[in-house]
Amino acid sequence: MNKEQRKSLDEAQMKLEIMRHSCAHLVAAAIQALYPEAKFGVGPVVENGFYYDVEFPETINEEALQEIEKKAKHLVKQNLKFERIEMSIDEAIKFFSDKNQTYKVLLLNDLKERGTTKMSTEELQHFGESVKNVSLYKTGEFVDLCRGPHIETSKEIGAFKLTKLAGAYWRGDEKNSQLQRIYGVCFTSEEELNNYLKMLEEIEKRDHRKLGRDLDIYSFDDEVGSGLPLWHPNGVILIEEIEKLAKEKEYEFGYCRVQTPHIAKQELYLRSGHLPYYKDSMFPPMEMDKEIYYLKAMNCPHHHKIFSSKKRSYRELPIRYAEYGHCYRYEDSGALFGLMRVRSLSMNDAHIYCTEEQFEEEFIKVLDLYKFYFELFGITKYQMRLSKHAEEGLGKKYVDNERLWLKTEEQVRNALIKSGLPFVEVENEAAFYGPKIDVEIWSVIGREFTLATNQLDFAVPERFNLTYIDKDGTEKTPICIHRAPLSTHERLIGFLLEHYAGAFPIWLSPVQVQFVPVSEKHVSGTRELENEFKNLKIRTVVDDADETVGKKVKKAVTQKIPYIVVVGDNELNGEDWTIRVRGQEEQLKMSKNDFLEKITKEIAERI
Amino acid sequence: MNKEQRKSLDEAQMKLEIMRHSCAHLVAAAIQALYPEAKFGVGPVVENGFYYDVEFPETINEEALQEIEKKAKHLVKQNLKFERIEMSIDEAIKFFSDKNQTYKVLLLNDLKERGTTKMSTEELQHFGESVKNVSLYKTGEFVDLCRGPHIETSKEIGAFKLTKLAGAYWRGDEKNSQLQRIYGVCFTSEEELNNYLKMLEEIEKRDHRKLGRDLDIYSFDDEVGSGLPLWHPNGVILIEEIEKLAKEKEYEFGYCRVQTPHIAKQELYLRSGHLPYYKDSMFPPMEMDKEIYYLKAMNCPHHHKIFSSKKRSYRELPIRYAEYGHCYRYEDSGALFGLMRVRSLSMNDAHIYCTEEQFEEEFIKVLDLYKFYFELFGITKYQMRLSKHAEEGLGKKYVDNERLWLKTEEQVRNALIKSGLPFVEVENEAAFYGPKIDVEIWSVIGREFTLATNQLDFAVPERFNLTYIDKDGTEKTPICIHRAPLSTHERLIGFLLEHYAGAFPIWLSPVQVQFVPVSEKHVSGTRELENEFKNLKIRTVVDDADETVGKKVKKAVTQKIPYIVVVGDNELNGEDWTIRVRGQEEQLKMSKNDFLEKITKEIAERI
Repeated sequence: MNKEQRKSLDEAQMKLEIMRHSCAHLVAAAIQALYPEAKFGVGPVVENGFYYDVEFPETINEEALQEIEKKAKHLVKQNLKFERIEMSIDEAIKFFSDKNQTYKVLLLNDLKERGTTKMSTEELQHFGESVKNVSLYKTGEFVDLCRGPHIETSKEIGAFKLTKLAGAYWRGDEKNSQLQRIYGVCFTSEEELNNYLKMLEEIEKRDHRKLGRDLDIYSFDDEVGSGLPLWHPNGVILIEEIEKLAKEKEYEFGYCRVQTPHIAKQELYLRSGHLPYYKDSMFPPMEMDKEIYYLKAMNCPHHHKIFSSKKRSYRELPIRYAEYGHCYRYEDSGALFGLMRVRSLSMNDAHIYCTEEQFEEEFIKVLDLYKFYFELFGITKYQMRLSKHAEEGLGKKYVDNERLWLKTEEQVRNALIKSGLPFVEVENEAAFYGPKIDVEIWSVIGREFTLATNQLDFAVPERFNLTYIDKDGTEKTPICIHRAPLSTHERLIGFLLEHYAGAFPIWLSPVQVQFVPVSEKHVSGTRELENEFKNLKIRTVVDDADETVGKKVKKAVTQKIPYIVVVGDNELNGEDWTIRVRGQEEQLKMSKNDFLEKITKEIAERI
Repeated sequence: MNKEQRKSLDEAQMKLEIMRHSCAHLVAAAIQALYPEAKFGVGPVVENGFYYDVEFPETINEEALQEIEKKAKHLVKQNLKFERIEMSIDEAIKFFSDKNQTYKVLLLNDLKERGTTKMSTEELQHFGESVKNVSLYKTGEFVDLCRGPHIETSKEIGAFKLTKLAGAYWRGDEKNSQLQRIYGVCFTSEEELNNYLKMLEEIEKRDHRKLGRDLDIYSFDDEVGSGLPLWHPNGVILIEEIEKLAKEKEYEFGYCRVQTPHIAKQELYLRSGHLPYYKDSMFPPMEMDKEIYYLKAMNCPHHHKIFSSKKRSYRELPIRYAEYGHCYRYEDSGALFGLMRVRSLSMNDAHIYCTEEQFEEEFIKVLDLYKFYFELFGITKYQMRLSKHAEEGLGKKYVDNERLWLKTEEQVRNALIKSGLPFVEVENEAAFYGPKIDVEIWSVIGREFTLATNQLDFAVPERFNLTYIDKDGTEKTPICIHRAPLSTHERLIGFLLEHYAGAFPIWLSPVQVQFVPVSEKHVSGTRELENEFKNLKIRTVVDDADETVGKKVKKAVTQKIPYIVVVGDNELNGEDWTIRVRGQEEQLKMSKNDFLEKITKEIAERI
């Protein structure tokens, strides 16, 4: 994206926010019409819409919310003007006092007495820059203290919906009185609004925490600790299939695998520079016998130590060390969120040590891996975000090697162009030690995830004295690429749960075929079938619970199992099977052997 | 082994130790003859022999050691008697003072003044129980302070050899004067001695630390920490092949896999009972935000939490959770030894939750796994050691459930008998929570290793409130079996390095085929072959270094690579290949396709 594009995007966003904020005023106007005694707090813009905090004479409910929405929609049609009125702060105080709008008066007094208020930026946007004069906006009968700007008339408001009611303390302080917060979403068109509401609904249905529980994927336990997932058998099947995939691809791409402990002495992290700078994100130290150990928060220092464990020759480069390395990061307990934000992360990590000459080709190969994975997982929308050093120079923020910065940024750009991957470039967002690429992907329902980061590292190889003997006999320092295309197991599985709504492709499905024996007398024959399938490495389950066939089939459908076979006399006698296929009305009819061939192929080809 | 057998074994061992101790006296007699001014410290029995600490007038060397051995052998032939002399402690002090044996006088004074000495049990064995009178033993001209007993005459000494010289501080305190320690080994016959010396030589050649370095398997790093192995690519190939084997067998045996974090809150280990009892073996705690975390020293508590994450029915049992779980134990730095004693352990762990009725069958299946692994790894000598509760009852040392102790001990015994595995039973060595089996194996050169432990657990499932709903609707507590037949990666790979002397069977070999191109012009053709082999999942390397073919072949032989193929015009033109087979004089002659078929089969069948 160039500057022009970025500018026009920013302008569109601003226009959208003005509309949303105007919509908040309109909703307030509707509230005033319905509840003349209502007292208004603040009503800022938030993602996809707005909210307004209101003190009602009596607590209102969801039904009332719909009334308010109806009234607001009515007002929209009246084509009300948004009129700006300017007055002195004292006039404004009198104006709102007369209307008994105590919260507005509080805001104004604060502003007058202290020149500012303690409020958040969100709230501050309502005020003029001068504390002598303020601006108000009038919409029909409703007048609000507001810096603006606003739309001209209410007809410019596109489509909106009031989505929920919540409690909110005045100024977020629980010692203050409690107001009711009305949330609304607002878009330019009905279509956009409906798409968004549909996505919300889908997000809820696809919530990875709910699916994780329903499909028996993982759990947390208070005595184990927050953000430390326990992976159940179904979850480990996902993990192992993903790891198998990674190993196959990495073998094909010339990686070799290493394994390193989950802890190291303080000295390692002082050398790497993670201590003291990264300390807050690490678990606290363990002290014993005058030694201090830390849980690793990243795998790089350990890999560097394997590189430096013996003399290296240029003939060995590139060396590509891969490890599903398990790291620990101490996220604030408030920031933890299902599998998406955890304290233990199993990372599809690798470090590539190469020469400057090899770098571009190596980077292209990493991008090829991404492309392969995107296609495999049906990720059709993605973007690479290339973070570079600052336009004005390296300063103290970046490793002092301008030649290498310019060269590798150019190489990364070339690699991105050659790979045909969509990308944007951003200035002054690189890591201290080199440029990086953040990989942004969108799930099938349009939600954005940051999947992974690729980083270049000029600095750390030197701190670890990593060297190789070049053709000419001199000792040189390699460049290091950090990469993790499959992210962490936690984040990827969290994403895939949402992306597939739990209906994993067959190669990932914890149970691939579920057999439902018609009656007790079919159980032992079905067990034989199960063994036959299991020996072919097809994950098979027999549901022999004491329930009706219908109920068992329904349960298997809920579990999103790709193939369900009800086994009765016919099936045991070798006649054609009737196979229920996930997501299809029509059932398959085929011989057992054809079915075996079909699923074996689907699993092998990861269809 | 019954009590009779054990008793006769103990007697044989005691006889051997008496002979070894007598041999120490004889060596001292030889020293006295050669160095009349030598002063003697202590000379106890150790494994396979003895040592004697001596202060020589001047430091002696290896050559002198041989002189001493020669002299001692000469004395043996003289058929010297071992005469016991008893005297009062004061007479003894005078006796040794006259002989200027200051160390013996120090020992006697200590004994007299304090009634005891601070010395180790080893040294204490020389003294009588009473501090009034002591016993001395006379052998030819040499008289030693000694509790005895001894052999009758020197002819009873079998075969011996002085093996090495080392420094040793008097009483192990570096503030004291330094003596020289002479080590000797002593056996009943020449043949036994020679076998032992040959084994020593083999052990040195097969030292897993040396092989681990030479074959680039693993390393340690000071900044990472002692006892925390970094696994290099060759080591990870071993790990992953072993893990693949374990997963295949465990899949076949109905296990499912779980994955759990490497840490947990203190609360978990208080519940499991590992805290405070096991605290010394654990890494120190990590404290943050009023929470205390520990690195896990075992996987069981985490697995129990997965079991208890939902309601269980009898229909689900047995549940078998397997995990190559990575545990951390804080071994004393002095106890660390290569891969055999480490601080990070990757364990072939599993927990089987079953009913009392299912227990025997489950246990037999575990033993079947052992038998399979023994055969696969060519382990022909092994023994299971069944540790039971005390004959006199449970007391406070064992979980109070006599019925279950008796029943399961009987079931374990039955399982062992049915499996046909050799075993011994020992009283009063069980764990607090149930009987256990230690698995002892011997490497191909006759060295013993304790491979693994199987434990039964009556107590912990209750502490974790693990229950299932039985057929009759009542809630019951399952029995838990802890098992780890493949031990830890660290210990098993350490063992296998010695067992195979680094010449791993092809399925485990880090490099399976090494290609040596005859000259520069054969390199690209050889690279194509490499790709062809790699695509068939055969681990292949091309050595294109700028060295002679002879040198490269020699290098590959040192690396113990199973198959080496020198690639020249003939090989590239599709003629029959000449293949160098590890450990064979004669080279193979066969077509490329036959060779591919041969090794693919060998790898698949783990030959």
